[in-house]
Amino acid sequence: MKRLAILFCIAMIGLTSCNQKTETADSSTSTDPLPSWKEGLTKSAIIQFVDDVTTKGSATYVEPKERIATFDQDGTLWCEQPVAQLEFVTYQIEKMANSHPEWKDVQPYKSILEGDTDYLINDYLNNHGKELMKLILTTHSGMTLAEFNADVQEFMSSSIHPKYNKKYTETVYQPMIELLQHLENNDFKTYICSGGGNDFMRVFAEETYGIVPENVIGTFAMNTFEHLDGTWHIIKGADNFFMNDGLTKPAAIEQRIGRIPIFVAGNVRSGGDIGQLTYGNTNKLPNFQLLINHDDEIREFAYSEKDSASLKAAEKGEWNVVSMKTDWLTIFSFE
Amino acid sequence: MKRLAILFCIAMIGLTSCNQKTETADSSTSTDPLPSWKEGLTKSAIIQFVDDVTTKGSATYVEPKERIATFDQDGTLWCEQPVAQLEFVTYQIEKMANSHPEWKDVQPYKSILEGDTDYLINDYLNNHGKELMKLILTTHSGMTLAEFNADVQEFMSSSIHPKYNKKYTETVYQPMIELLQHLENNDFKTYICSGGGNDFMRVFAEETYGIVPENVIGTFAMNTFEHLDGTWHIIKGADNFFMNDGLTKPAAIEQRIGRIPIFVAGNVRSGGDIGQLTYGNTNKLPNFQLLINHDDEIREFAYSEKDSASLKAAEKGEWNVVSMKTDWLTIFSFE
Repeated sequence: MKRLAILFCIAMIGLTSCNQKTETADSSTSTDPLPSWKEGLTKSAIIQFVDDVTTKGSATYVEPKERIATFDQDGTLWCEQPVAQLEFVTYQIEKMANSHPEWKDVQPYKSILEGDTDYLINDYLNNHGKELMKLILTTHSGMTLAEFNADVQEFMSSSIHPKYNKKYTETVYQPMIELLQHLENNDFKTYICSGGGNDFMRVFAEETYGIVPENVIGTFAMNTFEHLDGTWHIIKGADNFFMNDGLTKPAAIEQRIGRIPIFVAGNVRSGGDIGQLTYGNTNKLPNFQLLINHDDEIREFAYSEKDSASLKAAEKGEWNVVSMKTDWLTIFSFE
Repeated sequence: MKRLAILFCIAMIGLTSCNQKTETADSSTSTDPLPSWKEGLTKSAIIQFVDDVTTKGSATYVEPKERIATFDQDGTLWCEQPVAQLEFVTYQIEKMANSHPEWKDVQPYKSILEGDTDYLINDYLNNHGKELMKLILTTHSGMTLAEFNADVQEFMSSSIHPKYNKKYTETVYQPMIELLQHLENNDFKTYICSGGGNDFMRVFAEETYGIVPENVIGTFAMNTFEHLDGTWHIIKGADNFFMNDGLTKPAAIEQRIGRIPIFVAGNVRSGGDIGQLTYGNTNKLPNFQLLINHDDEIREFAYSEKDSASLKAAEKGEWNVVSMKTDWLTIFSFE
């Protein structure tokens, strides 16, 4: 198994069994905005919140311009086992190796070409993942934006998820697609706020989630505008690199939006969404936090955090915890 | 004269006399979307372009989601003599000096407190403006975002433009306010793309121009999210500093919007808008460029560029050049 994503499995132990929702009989009607959600406390809380902030004249009313919602992507909007963007790195290195015969003897490329995961795990644990960063920069900088976009498109069209035998863009969570739509229908502006690449996610975010490019907030480096071969191009850059994860997510939301979200959704895995969920909590307007727990080893995957930091923060912040097993009738539309 | 803005005057020589528009009798009607613009080629071209891209079924139709418009601020939306944000730096240094008695003997603070403009001009010409950058960081980082916003608000409420005896936010160009409104009315998303600070401009952009915080693109550093005195705060940062000017503006537009604008407006002074105007030219969709020339020494100011780079680029790119003297019936609403 040469997938880079294995790096991110090492922090995972066991299965969480965390949910405490009271379920009622499923009584979806044709006007149910969230048909893939089981009736219960989580679903009711979401619908109540949206009602509260959209009811004019109520004390909980929030003006449309303040209805900002941010969503993590990996593990929140689509499956993160494996992380698609790391699969893309492997895919690109293997393709680029055709014109770099020297890579078979040069690290970190050698480790990818030989499927030597120990090399990158060791780098991740003892070297701040600096070798992984080299691979990311090799595959994400130096080319025109148009070339990069075509590479991502090619990867997305030709790669298949190992468990589901579907394209990665088909492994989106149906309940979350319904939630995004319900918020948009109620004049929320929905954003992705993810550790995934700004430009990477934009290639498929609009078609997959209905999220426009200007609402995709991700890890970025500043690109450049250059005149080459008689034409102007945006060139993918490596400077001003900003990793959008954990406590840095609020900074990216501030840089991009300039308002605190009133609705934030993230998931349990590495504590990567504690920052944006906490940021939502600081809003003086009514606000809502959703934390997805991956506890369905049959339909999806079951994993938890070493230190349970996200679940502890959820208890403290009174966030709404979603059990994928208990709260979601359907996970994928292809089920 | 101790204003920092003097630094930016050193490149200015003389008065341009550049406009070549054919004027017709002013025949504004009650439905005229641009009443402060004189009838003529520029006004007709703007109205025609907006009609073209909004007429369904025409070959020039552009979908609303692609109707992105970016506007420079200083010299394009409001008066840049002096640059308000540099006045804010002086204002803050003088205020902060009360609790920094040592500054009277330490550069670059000393130069501000003594009104010694030669020191900063020399720094600008021979030292890449590094001393000016120290002053900017002193006044723009280290405090909470809430404190910074209050400082900007105080400055804006209490400071008066030296020529007009009006607040800076009153020195906005009435024809450009009408243009922003005309574009918004036609389902454009209007953005500021300026060398001004991201956070600085957001304090007044919505009230002054109707431009929401998420549509303000400026010079930035990444802020941080920190837990201090029992509460979470956004703290103004100094890392990942990105100067949004000249050829870097397309990179910021790409980072923030992820689409190429179809309408770009900038002005003649330092060539600072050539980048974004050229970027608009690369759009495969119908696109429009507007370059404002400051040639009205009586109603505003008259200045040009040493090398006329912006006007030369306008000729090459077939951009629409606005003569403030000839094309604008009214410059300020207080006239």
